[in-house]
Order: sequence, then structure tokens, then C-alpha cells
Amino acid sequence: MKLYDYKLAPNPQRVRMFMVEKGISIETIQVDLMKTEQFSDAFKKINPLCEVPTLQLDSGNCIAQVNAICRYLEELFPENPLYGRNPEERALVESQNHWVHINGGLAVGEAFRNSSHNFKNRAVSGPHDYAQIPELAERGLLRIDNLFADLDAHFANSQFMVGDYFSMADITAYTTINFASWAKKTVPKNHSHLQRWHDQVASRPSSKA
Amino acid sequence: MKLYDYKLAPNPQRVRMFMVEKGISIETIQVDLMKTEQFSDAFKKINPLCEVPTLQLDSGNCIAQVNAICRYLEELFPENPLYGRNPEERALVESQNHWVHINGGLAVGEAFRNSSHNFKNRAVSGPHDYAQIPELAERGLLRIDNLFADLDAHFANSQFMVGDYFSMADITAYTTINFASWAKKTVPKNHSHLQRWHDQVASRPSSKA
Repeated sequence: MKLYDYKLAPNPQRVRMFMVEKGISIETIQVDLMKTEQFSDAFKKINPLCEVPTLQLDSGNCIAQVNAICRYLEELFPENPLYGRNPEERALVESQNHWVHINGGLAVGEAFRNSSHNFKNRAVSGPHDYAQIPELAERGLLRIDNLFADLDAHFANSQFMVGDYFSMADITAYTTINFASWAKKTVPKNHSHLQRWHDQVASRPSSKA
Repeated sequence: MKLYDYKLAPNPQRVRMFMVEKGISIETIQVDLMKTEQFSDAFKKINPLCEVPTLQLDSGNCIAQVNAICRYLEELFPENPLYGRNPEERALVESQNHWVHINGGLAVGEAFRNSSHNFKNRAVSGPHDYAQIPELAERGLLRIDNLFADLDAHFANSQFMVGDYFSMADITAYTTINFASWAKKTVPKNHSHLQRWHDQVASRPSSKA
């Protein structure tokens, strides 16, 4: 297998953290998004959506999207599960992971991609060009404020995203919080529960992946 | 178990189609979104995100989000799997299902919620209010056009979202195409492959769910 990756981007980092937590090592190829290598004809054959991460299987088939890749690896390497240890826990991990991606990762993306000079006409990832909307960048910042507050309230009563079980949902939340710094947003000083959880995840070796 | 549902909304319909395909029947309670019942104190205790569908388990615990609910039901009722029959197929279903939700369901939501009078200050679902952005409604319509074209190209070479296997990704895509009509967008006349697939899914009894 080969993992198409880009060291600086938040979504591939979710896969890299997942692999370190699982103890999985896969040949990795860097696709330099700053040089727009994802739009090359060669990469379009690997993933027509022009996105990393992409996992190329030994069959030649390619799997796009973070959760598709990580769930596939979880099946191949079931030890130390990160998507839950029983049906109810798996449902809670899926629910929290999806929630934080939609209300976190996409919100930061809105704030960042609709304001950065580097993303002119590239306000949405993927093969299609879309003009930036400055008002949407502003709304993204409001959504990040609400995300921080909602997570702080959650971590006041819960060690991790799902009880005392470290899961894929924590990986998604952690990379999202770090991604927020791209939109110049960091954990507010009065959000001590969120900061406690962030420090806890940052102390894991996988956080450096 | 109890399923909190709203007959007219696109996300709960994904769960209802899934249940009909699987032959699952669960007690269902309507939460009237037009009467904003999702913001009642009673429902906030069930799902603080104020969203349907929500599945309440016999333990009292609640599961929010379509895929968390449907994956949980798939584990309880493994016959006639809709999330794939082997690891690679499961990865492809997850990938396609996620892609069409992000680039389809959310795009239609952008177009609809940022323009409809009924959604003033409610441009994003969930507990927080956000003002509408008319430009985002316009961009949502462009994204729907691209979605239709991308799906038409896909179905030129594939019976379903993942080869000849009907899956959750088809359910998500089908409800998304129907949801697009809320933003006054229907399958363009020249997209015969997409129309062929839509007719095929519409002929399944589950499409009436």
C-alpha cells in the first residue's frame, strides 16, 4: 500500500496520527499542495477529487477520504481499536467524529479558505473552483468560537470525546483545534477544560505525526 | 429503541430508507421541525444538538447523526449489508457516502438555508444561530450543478455509487438529489446517466420511506 500525504495539511495528519496510535507504517508519498501537485494529470489518475490523503491499495485501487482510509486500516489491523470496542461505543465515536468534522474542520476551512490570498478561487477543496466569500470567512470565525465553547462544556464532564476512551474522534478534534490556528484562532484562556484535554492529547507521541 | 424522526426532512429519510432496505421496524416519534419542536427543553435532553434523526437506545443513551445510527443498526441486523460486504467495498462505500454528503447534502443545505425566509438566522443546523449569506446560497447552486455533472459522469460507467452494489452511498445520493428540489434544482435533461440511476433507485420500495 502507498499513502499519498502532505505533511502540512490537517486531513492527512488525522491518518498519520491514527497510524502512529495503531503502530502501522506505510510507504508515504508527499503531494505538495503548495505547488498544486494534486492537480497534476498523474495525481488525478490516483484521485480525481485532487485531495490527500489517498490510500493506494496493492490492487491499484485507491481509497479517498480520511475515515474510509482509517476504517479500512482498522479492519486490517484490529488491535488497539480507535473506532470503538462495542456497537454502542462505535456509534458514539462515529457520531462525535462526524460532528466535530462538520462543525469544526469545515468551519475552520470556511474561515481560512475564504480569506487567505493563497486560496483565491479555491474556497472549496476538490476539482472545482469557487470564488471566496468574505462574509463566510467571518461566519467561520463565529463557528470556531462556538466550537471551542461546545468542546469546553463537553470536556468539563468527559475525559475524551467519548468517555474515558481515546478514539478517532479525539484525533479529528485535536487536528481541528490546531488547524484553527491557521485562521488565527487558539483556545481561549477561560476554556480550561478544552485546554486540559488538548494538553493531554498533545502529550501523546502520535501528536507529532 | 425509539427513532426521533421528521417525515419531511432529508437526513431522517436516509435512516428510514436504510431501515426499509434492511427490513427493520422501530418505534418512531415525529419531531415537528416546522414548529421548532427540536429546540424544546424536552428534546434538548434527548439531543443537545437539536437535530433529527436521533436514536434512543433501551439504555436511555442517544445516538445522533445518520451514519452513527445506520452503522449501529447494521451491526445489530447484519443481514443485507448496506455499508459493504468486504473491507475494500466498505472503504469505497464510506468514501462515496462521505463525498456525496459533503459535496451534495451540505451544498444543497447552503443553497436552501441561506435563501429561504423560513431559515432567517438559521443558516446552519444545530443549536447556534447564524445569519444567512445570500452569496453562499448562490455558490450552493453552482455546487449542485457540479454535483449533478460529477454524478452523471460517475453513473456513465457504474450502475450504483459503488459498482453494481446498492449501498448506503446510493441512499445518501438519492435523498440529496431529491433535497436539491428544495433549492429548485432538478436533474438536467442532458444528464441521462444520472436520470437512469435516479429512476432505478426511485423504483425501489424504500424510496417511498
